[in-house]
Amino acid sequence: MAAENLKRGDGLPPAMTRLVKELSRLPGIGEKTASRLAFNLLNRPRDQVIALAESLLEMKERVGLCDQCYGLSDNPRCQICDDPARERDVICVVEGPADLMAIERARSFSGVYHVLHGAIAPLDGIGPDDVKLKELIARVNPPTAVREVIIATNATVEGEATALYIAKALRPWGVKTTRLARGLPAGGDLEYSDSATLTSALAGRREL
Amino acid sequence: MAAENLKRGDGLPPAMTRLVKELSRLPGIGEKTASRLAFNLLNRPRDQVIALAESLLEMKERVGLCDQCYGLSDNPRCQICDDPARERDVICVVEGPADLMAIERARSFSGVYHVLHGAIAPLDGIGPDDVKLKELIARVNPPTAVREVIIATNATVEGEATALYIAKALRPWGVKTTRLARGLPAGGDLEYSDSATLTSALAGRREL
Repeated sequence: MAAENLKRGDGLPPAMTRLVKELSRLPGIGEKTASRLAFNLLNRPRDQVIALAESLLEMKERVGLCDQCYGLSDNPRCQICDDPARERDVICVVEGPADLMAIERARSFSGVYHVLHGAIAPLDGIGPDDVKLKELIARVNPPTAVREVIIATNATVEGEATALYIAKALRPWGVKTTRLARGLPAGGDLEYSDSATLTSALAGRREL
Repeated sequence: MAAENLKRGDGLPPAMTRLVKELSRLPGIGEKTASRLAFNLLNRPRDQVIALAESLLEMKERVGLCDQCYGLSDNPRCQICDDPARERDVICVVEGPADLMAIERARSFSGVYHVLHGAIAPLDGIGPDDVKLKELIARVNPPTAVREVIIATNATVEGEATALYIAKALRPWGVKTTRLARGLPAGGDLEYSDSATLTSALAGRREL
């Protein structure tokens, strides 16, 4: 057989090849996983595939940022900022929308948020003007009467640096600025904790 | 704070929640991965997200089965069946379109295919009429003059049973029926080979 001389593709119709290519752009999805997904989608009922495609378009069409807290929203003002039951005088500052979600899932915060969309990282060329810090200062500025700003940036080098920078920037406004506690995570085992965590846990010890 | 009494969602706009839900229907994608994908898509350029949505719709709209080999195709006759360079008198029988792709990738077959869309598995209630077997027999039926049918079903219990069933069903037509060789895979290590593989490798040994 002259198999080597044949012009050939991958044995897939072009519409499948295109879908595999588009799916494999997603993070953590290689070509193998993408073609597994594509075959799965091919065998799905038509309306499920249409629902997925429409939800992609709808998300891109409608989801923007809340004009107050810069969290994700499909209205000019997000559901949380709009909720009369939330305390408007306590602002929790997070790096990104996923952090906001994590805190909402914990169900133990009833104030409002401010999403920075990044952390200050001079080595990566990200300065204070590249995150929504001016916007935070504008919210703290009287007459809005903010009682407390809880800085909930990540416990990383960039997150800590951002927290310190924000605390300093807010000092002129006399608002109480706090930082999330550091210590052992729930279920945390002393034996397997790293030194930095143990150091924070010791330094932040509380009387019983 | 009366945090426990607040009505709350997940802190996401409904359009994001819907996308996360649709993505998490995909195989191997849980809710965490789905929301990571959704955030990633949110930050993508608009045209990339539209390209993904359109390729989903296009796939569902256009991809059907070739009316000869039942492989995937966006035309009534697939690219392979339509290619004048392929040998029409050698048919390779596979269980599914992904198997056809694997053989095409190997670039060592220049005949045409027949996709069964399943394997005979009586215990799962899948009989000979639930796969495209009648359609294979119709192709082998003269005057089409098929020289050889290569049965390339999987090396599983169902695949073997299907292979035997097909061989028997084709016997009246006097067509040569072959089965893919069993033996050590390329790079295979004797030490780590299972007994069934070694048994096949011994039984199928060839003179050098």
